[in-house]
Amino acid sequence: MSIDSKPVSELAALVGGRLIGKDSVTVSRVASLEAAAEGDIAYVEDGKFFDAARASQATCLIVPESMNLDAPCQIVVKNPKLAFALIAETLHPPKRRKPEIHSSAVLAKDAKLGRDVFIGAFVCVGEGSEVGDGTQVRAGAKIGDGVTVGNDCVIHPNVFIEDGVTIGNRVILHAGVVIGADGFGYVRGDMGYHKFPQIGTVIIEDDVELGANTTVDRGALGRTRIGRGTKLDNMVHVGHNCDIGERVVIAAQTGISGSVTIEDDCVIGGQVGFGDHIRVQSGAVIGSKAGVLPGKIVRPGVWWGIPIQPLDEYKRLNAHLRRVPHMRDELKELRARVKELEQELRKRNE
Amino acid sequence: MSIDSKPVSELAALVGGRLIGKDSVTVSRVASLEAAAEGDIAYVEDGKFFDAARASQATCLIVPESMNLDAPCQIVVKNPKLAFALIAETLHPPKRRKPEIHSSAVLAKDAKLGRDVFIGAFVCVGEGSEVGDGTQVRAGAKIGDGVTVGNDCVIHPNVFIEDGVTIGNRVILHAGVVIGADGFGYVRGDMGYHKFPQIGTVIIEDDVELGANTTVDRGALGRTRIGRGTKLDNMVHVGHNCDIGERVVIAAQTGISGSVTIEDDCVIGGQVGFGDHIRVQSGAVIGSKAGVLPGKIVRPGVWWGIPIQPLDEYKRLNAHLRRVPHMRDELKELRARVKELEQELRKRNE
Amino acid sequence: MSIDSKPVSELAALVGGRLIGKDSVTVSRVASLEAAAEGDIAYVEDGKFFDAARASQATCLIVPESMNLDAPCQIVVKNPKLAFALIAETLHPPKRRKPEIHSSAVLAKDAKLGRDVFIGAFVCVGEGSEVGDGTQVRAGAKIGDGVTVGNDCVIHPNVFIEDGVTIGNRVILHAGVVIGADGFGYVRGDMGYHKFPQIGTVIIEDDVELGANTTVDRGALGRTRIGRGTKLDNMVHVGHNCDIGERVVIAAQTGISGSVTIEDDCVIGGQVGFGDHIRVQSGAVIGSKAGVLPGKIVRPGVWWGIPIQPLDEYKRLNAHLRRVPHMRDELKELRARVKELEQELRKRNE
Repeated sequence: MSIDSKPVSELAALVGGRLIGKDSVTVSRVASLEAAAEGDIAYVEDGKFFDAARASQATCLIVPESMNLDAPCQIVVKNPKLAFALIAETLHPPKRRKPEIHSSAVLAKDAKLGRDVFIGAFVCVGEGSEVGDGTQVRAGAKIGDGVTVGNDCVIHPNVFIEDGVTIGNRVILHAGVVIGADGFGYVRGDMGYHKFPQIGTVIIEDDVELGANTTVDRGALGRTRIGRGTKLDNMVHVGHNCDIGERVVIAAQTGISGSVTIEDDCVIGGQVGFGDHIRVQSGAVIGSKAGVLPGKIVRPGVWWGIPIQPLDEYKRLNAHLRRVPHMRDELKELRARVKELEQELRKRNE
Repeated sequence: MSIDSKPVSELAALVGGRLIGKDSVTVSRVASLEAAAEGDIAYVEDGKFFDAARASQATCLIVPESMNLDAPCQIVVKNPKLAFALIAETLHPPKRRKPEIHSSAVLAKDAKLGRDVFIGAFVCVGEGSEVGDGTQVRAGAKIGDGVTVGNDCVIHPNVFIEDGVTIGNRVILHAGVVIGADGFGYVRGDMGYHKFPQIGTVIIEDDVELGANTTVDRGALGRTRIGRGTKLDNMVHVGHNCDIGERVVIAAQTGISGSVTIEDDCVIGGQVGFGDHIRVQSGAVIGSKAGVLPGKIVRPGVWWGIPIQPLDEYKRLNAHLRRVPHMRDELKELRARVKELEQELRKRNE
Repeated sequence: MSIDSKPVSELAALVGGRLIGKDSVTVSRVASLEAAAEGDIAYVEDGKFFDAARASQATCLIVPESMNLDAPCQIVVKNPKLAFALIAETLHPPKRRKPEIHSSAVLAKDAKLGRDVFIGAFVCVGEGSEVGDGTQVRAGAKIGDGVTVGNDCVIHPNVFIEDGVTIGNRVILHAGVVIGADGFGYVRGDMGYHKFPQIGTVIIEDDVELGANTTVDRGALGRTRIGRGTKLDNMVHVGHNCDIGERVVIAAQTGISGSVTIEDDCVIGGQVGFGDHIRVQSGAVIGSKAGVLPGKIVRPGVWWGIPIQPLDEYKRLNAHLRRVPHMRDELKELRARVKELEQELRKRNE
């Protein structure tokens, strides 16, 4: 048994699953059904993957309750994908850099670092800032003044956190993320544009993850918030004073203008655009590439299109629109027939 | 009177407003109507905010000329939002870092730094480059060779300015901005793509502000220009050889292909896409998520859609399209009626 | 003859062109027809530029075979733009920094650097990583652990390459590129989202160029691949497990969800969005701002719109849709005529 391998009995217990097969079998790696080899554990999402599951070389399979598979080692659970994710966390824990303060880092005298902190090369931590226990600040990340970063966060390389921002616990900021830059607000005067004050702040709550090169602007006067457990993909833009709720998921390259509220548990596709002062109600789902007009209230349900409409309506209307060429033909034919009728009647009148 | 507070009489004079109330009242902070407390100054944009203004705890209110508000301290002006922005600049001047050259910075021997310059940790300034008086180059920013940066600029962390670029005065580059990377130009040969030469440059004029992670590519042969007083939001892409005029505003995630000209005083929404060789004439307004086809000349007016059309036409056409399902019903009914007429006539003919 | 100038005979030979004029003429710079001056070489793409060619001050012109131009020095070739690109490579070779390991760089003890490598200031190279011969890693770039970078690459400032990534030869990564960050994959549990494992890797093959601030996520379980000779513009997002073929061109701000395959020689416009598990077949061309639905197979041809459809169909349908207002008028008129016919017949029946 390799130092990193685990008995399947332990993994089954971890995810509350029922083990079929020998307790003593061990696995050391997660893999896809196709790529799995000796010592790997894979998962079978549903019946569609039955054949792939039978062909898999995985040592152990995580299978749904309904599946009747003839394999020597199985962990039976309700949600195999979730169990797989939890088991992957155990077999492949995220890299934990050994606590260290790199000699090249520039730390303000009054910066407070927690226990077991990793501070990489060329990192800056500004005046009055705090970095919590177990947090890793990787090479080249820059933390401004008066910033609070919680415990067990991972701040990836070249991230920038501007003055006064607050970051919760277990937050992951991928490389190139910028938090707390000025929002985009100007007032036009006679000579051009004057900056509207951008003196608010940003609060990132616990368990948030932000993808590479994503930007979250500070509030103009108040704050911008990203709620607990919310996940943003790469290159998402969050404007000043937005309030993004808890457990919201936003795919890549979506842009959110100022003062937009997205309530808890919404799911937003990629490349969606939001005008300002929108409220997306809890549980709404907005499809990729949609556009939401300023001031709109988006009710729960599935939305689509530019500007957004309920997905059903969108599909219905689109089906109608695809019939327009046919309608033109019908219309033409009908006109000919009406003309004939008219001529016929005229003839009789003569 | 706190060290940072100002008498309202002074602020009224600053914005050319009429003071209602006591000269001696002082304020120290700008705030929104709702959040304002003792010592704050807020503004009332127009009549819609009358009730919020009455309920506000602000010590002083900036109000429009038309408003008849019963508050003890008011500054009456034509444009309250503009006055508020100007007063905010006075009460909350942008952070001015004390002049310093951080010991970790790597400066070329022949780099020229002006007076009162701030050079943060891990900054590079290349050969033959100049940084003007009062400019702040924050931690991790990289300035290539032969670059000129004017006076009183703020170059935020992790910005990169490539060789040969020219930056004017009072320019603000937010974190992660990249200026002067190669444009996207290739020529297909038998074996694949060859780089079209990208040996031009970039000129950023005075008072420009570029949002976080925005990129401005260098000209292929000539130059890319961003005109005086122009403001770009986060993650805007400006291709090679673009010529963006003065006082242009471009919202987040808009992408501009090569050789596009946007004349003075245009307003461009977010996530707009421009093909190459477009000319947008002075004063045009293009709505968010619009798409402009290559080679198009966009006249003044408000534009919308993919591909763009005048907003009025777009709305009109869309209203028609929403009637298509109804038209299908009408068409069906009409066909039935025509058929009946035909049968009726046939019957008579028999 | 300046130290950098070349005889036109040599340049003609380089591109396999026929020289008209004296062998001994030399040029030192490429330029556009309009900007060209004494000592410059310019190209004439086709007949549209005949007048510009006649007016050009260029010392030598690269012209297509069909063109009959009365100029003292010409290089006649099949593809003038390609010849121009090749000549530009000779006259303006990309900057080659003198081999150097900057004293501030942080290199792991077991990092292997090839011959003639340039390592700029504030660069990190992690444990077990390799940098090939002639590769330039510019200031502030961060290379993780177990990374392989090939020969003659240029890694521009502030790039980040995560652990375990493999980069081929002659690869150019522009500033702010992030390679190998976690893909965007979560499984919803009772309490919120759990990370789906993101433990795969990224392979970037030879001669790839990635634009500024582009991000390429690592595979969840397998790998993400960018094939040989492929070129991506600025701010392109490539999700986990994508397989992008050889000689693919992707314009700025396009977003590609997980597990998308784009086969060799495809051309993808800017701001295109791809759902997951799409396959784009070799030779397909997808217009800017298009949207491709998850799971779609995109056959060769030109595609357009949201969701995509063949460009011809899109244009045809759109032409029909623009007639809808007219159709409503026709429909109205037809109803009136049918009504009249009905009344007429009823009258007779009385």
